[in-house]
Amino acid sequence: MAKFERIPTPAVRRLSLYLRQLERFRAADRRTVSSRELGDAVAVSDAQVRKDLAYFGQFGHPGIGYRIAELIDRVRRILGTDKQSNVLIVGVGNLGRALASYRGFAKQGFDLVAAFDDDARKIGTRLTESIRVKPMDDLVKTVAGHQIRFGILCVPATSAQAAAEQMIAAGIRGILNFAPVTLQVDAGVAVSSVDLAVHLEQLSFQLGGGRYGAGKAADV
Amino acid sequence: MAKFERIPTPAVRRLSLYLRQLERFRAADRRTVSSRELGDAVAVSDAQVRKDLAYFGQFGHPGIGYRIAELIDRVRRILGTDKQSNVLIVGVGNLGRALASYRGFAKQGFDLVAAFDDDARKIGTRLTESIRVKPMDDLVKTVAGHQIRFGILCVPATSAQAAAEQMIAAGIRGILNFAPVTLQVDAGVAVSSVDLAVHLEQLSFQLGGGRYGAGKAADV
Repeated sequence: MAKFERIPTPAVRRLSLYLRQLERFRAADRRTVSSRELGDAVAVSDAQVRKDLAYFGQFGHPGIGYRIAELIDRVRRILGTDKQSNVLIVGVGNLGRALASYRGFAKQGFDLVAAFDDDARKIGTRLTESIRVKPMDDLVKTVAGHQIRFGILCVPATSAQAAAEQMIAAGIRGILNFAPVTLQVDAGVAVSSVDLAVHLEQLSFQLGGGRYGAGKAADV
Repeated sequence: MAKFERIPTPAVRRLSLYLRQLERFRAADRRTVSSRELGDAVAVSDAQVRKDLAYFGQFGHPGIGYRIAELIDRVRRILGTDKQSNVLIVGVGNLGRALASYRGFAKQGFDLVAAFDDDARKIGTRLTESIRVKPMDDLVKTVAGHQIRFGILCVPATSAQAAAEQMIAAGIRGILNFAPVTLQVDAGVAVSSVDLAVHLEQLSFQLGGGRYGAGKAADV
């Protein structure tokens, strides 16, 4: 592990973008791709593609480029999504319901297996074909029973920290956080936050909406 | 403008985090804050706080720290969110509906004023108290009439590029993209993409789900 500790977060983010694009190439029946073609498709330079991949090993074949199926397998192994992982949702408001119906998760190795809310009126209601909303008291049992490590948190800001602590106490180790708060978590717990207002502010800045716009597009 | 072109994207992202935290401090009736307190609250170092703010000018007061109300005003001006901006949504599925009910937007300077879909069954249905879903043909007229520069794109991946092009042709200059595709846009158009599977993959990587986990939490 130590060997890889210095990999910059943006490089890991780009691995996801490469993976998404490689899957599209494969769906279009392509077998190989050059770093330039892959870079062009996701708007980064070919040098950046090679550099990002070089953190993890040797992937290209001289005179061929990358073999798409092989590179997909290897990137998935690097990201740890070569096996399906179980995921739960805490907070079944509009956003929770939208996320539950988002098909991208399963395709990328994440199976939504349970949903929780502390609103008694929601408990027992159907979220998807196979999932009914459970009370927060069932969190510990469900996490253990389904070996769930990842949780999606979409409760209001005011209850986010408390809900996150319940998730962590139950054994969750990675939280995708949609509440507009900075969660305080112990070392060993990973948090990725999606604050939608932040994204809009970044766009506003890029468009020079203030006095300082830089005009460059940012991604994820 | 040229002077600010080299501001790193992560620094601008952190401005949003600082702003969120400053608003919480103000809501708790605090008047001043040190770079250390602000940094602690959003999990960055005090040196980083000072460095990020220094890109934009001189904000601190010796012996006092930052005056919270003043810093909020100035960060909003930098981000261009000191005035309200009109926003539209294209794609009124589950996610579009969830986003329409997300109250964080208005609070941060963004007013959702219109929604569009190409599904005839959705046209005319009520999205919020004040918004009914319009056909895509109305895009040009609405963008001009409401002076809208920002659009939230939440259509399926297969129709995202075409929908983005319609938005841009109508005058939209910033797109918050939820479709899991890399949009190809002209210079002068800013795109910020929220790919939920990417966020989960990043968590998976951090947890060492693959062979290379780094164990460090990342944020937006």
